[in-house]
Amino acid sequence: MRDDSRVRLKDGERIDDLQRNGYGIIQNTGAFCFGMDAVLLSGFSRVRRGETVVDLCTGTGIVPVLLEAKTEGSFFYGVEIQPEMADMARRSLLLNGIGDKVRILEGDLREILPGSTSSGTGNAGCAAGSGIAHGELAELDALMGRTDVVTANPPYIREMHGLQNPEDALAIARHEVRCTLEDVCCAAARLLRSGGRFYMVHRPHRLPEIITVLKEARLEPKRLKFVHPYLDREANMVLIEAVRDGRPECRVEEPLVVYKEPNVYTDEIYDIYGY
Amino acid sequence: MRDDSRVRLKDGERIDDLQRNGYGIIQNTGAFCFGMDAVLLSGFSRVRRGETVVDLCTGTGIVPVLLEAKTEGSFFYGVEIQPEMADMARRSLLLNGIGDKVRILEGDLREILPGSTSSGTGNAGCAAGSGIAHGELAELDALMGRTDVVTANPPYIREMHGLQNPEDALAIARHEVRCTLEDVCCAAARLLRSGGRFYMVHRPHRLPEIITVLKEARLEPKRLKFVHPYLDREANMVLIEAVRDGRPECRVEEPLVVYKEPNVYTDEIYDIYGY
Repeated sequence: MRDDSRVRLKDGERIDDLQRNGYGIIQNTGAFCFGMDAVLLSGFSRVRRGETVVDLCTGTGIVPVLLEAKTEGSFFYGVEIQPEMADMARRSLLLNGIGDKVRILEGDLREILPGSTSSGTGNAGCAAGSGIAHGELAELDALMGRTDVVTANPPYIREMHGLQNPEDALAIARHEVRCTLEDVCCAAARLLRSGGRFYMVHRPHRLPEIITVLKEARLEPKRLKFVHPYLDREANMVLIEAVRDGRPECRVEEPLVVYKEPNVYTDEIYDIYGY
Repeated sequence: MRDDSRVRLKDGERIDDLQRNGYGIIQNTGAFCFGMDAVLLSGFSRVRRGETVVDLCTGTGIVPVLLEAKTEGSFFYGVEIQPEMADMARRSLLLNGIGDKVRILEGDLREILPGSTSSGTGNAGCAAGSGIAHGELAELDALMGRTDVVTANPPYIREMHGLQNPEDALAIARHEVRCTLEDVCCAAARLLRSGGRFYMVHRPHRLPEIITVLKEARLEPKRLKFVHPYLDREANMVLIEAVRDGRPECRVEEPLVVYKEPNVYTDEIYDIYGY
């Protein structure tokens, strides 16, 4: 049960209601707040009873918190590189009383890359190494090649130029400062068992590159869903399900349209948000 | 001007009205008739004033005939491997009086592959050779690396099994009996000038493979449009624009929905069909 008295808020932080199980999430309005993309990702992801989930680039922890609420998965990890974000996410678990099923690991997902259980048939994009993750991410070593589901709402923007301060929390969340698309996909591929599923939300303008990187990591795209702000506008998000070692055969689902008119969500968005 | 008396119809053939410039097209109801995919491809393709277009797997010639009617391109070629189809397409040109702007070349597009003007920086997917096309396709030699636009509505189905007769006209139009996706994309890449555009209609379930093959042929996907039979159904066609040597950056256009209710087309379909 949620209990706001369990947590102390820091300067600039507030608790936002998630409209789901009574859960709340702590956010800092001066740093990165979760967007609709994270919520749509949790709506698109399929987690079956008893499955283990690892969310990469977890930020506020929004995706594992929502998946814990919505699914019958047995355990949920969130990996976050920024200490302040990881701390905030942990207090959100405390707030909602779900620390027994969700765990936030602070660390750099690139450490997962060398700690591989790959059979050695990997490729250039996901070169095998011999190290193992250290620090908090060492907990993931036992999950290498065994995870059922990996999710990620990674930074979307490849370009670094224009960045005033690449160490800024917002910059790290939005730009590929600390991890690239390749890093995220390779980490997912290394964590997943054969047949395990990777769910990612990203920008359609990078779709050809995304598909290339996924296939190189032996993550076969199986289901795509494009998100359009209005029915007559181009897509501004894409939701992707890829299966580790999957057979090539892809479905493009019905489009997800966000607004039926300005400020009025479509029914499907209300369903996903859980209103 | 169309004049039906200019052509003689063979057994099983009929003239269908194209609802565009008064043009008609000869089809054989026992063989392959053009579908909505060819019409949507011609609606999706952009041809500017003075540009030269080559349509691969042209079949009845529907795509060059429609593009001649709709655009200000200067000259249109259609390449067709089946002699009976090529003959039928030629009679459609005669019927519509457009033999001065559209030419059907009978031949195997795989002959285009070795007759390359590639700079030699090609890749494994489109290995360079030293031959030149012969027969009617020799006319395309002058267009190698110089074509502005290539279009294709290729056979969609990879699997050969289940085919009773792989030499059957329908089988050749639908299955990759005579040419594969790789063949079509490589032929397009070799014909196109740098910056030239390739337009293709295909099945979404092969999208990841299509994108991989295009990128290997240095055809960068720039614009995708998914076609859904109804708004709440998954896509059953995808329209793709790829640019030879293009910069990676892709747009996913608003979805194209075919029916608003059973037997009632959406307005956009009426626009494309030219009603």
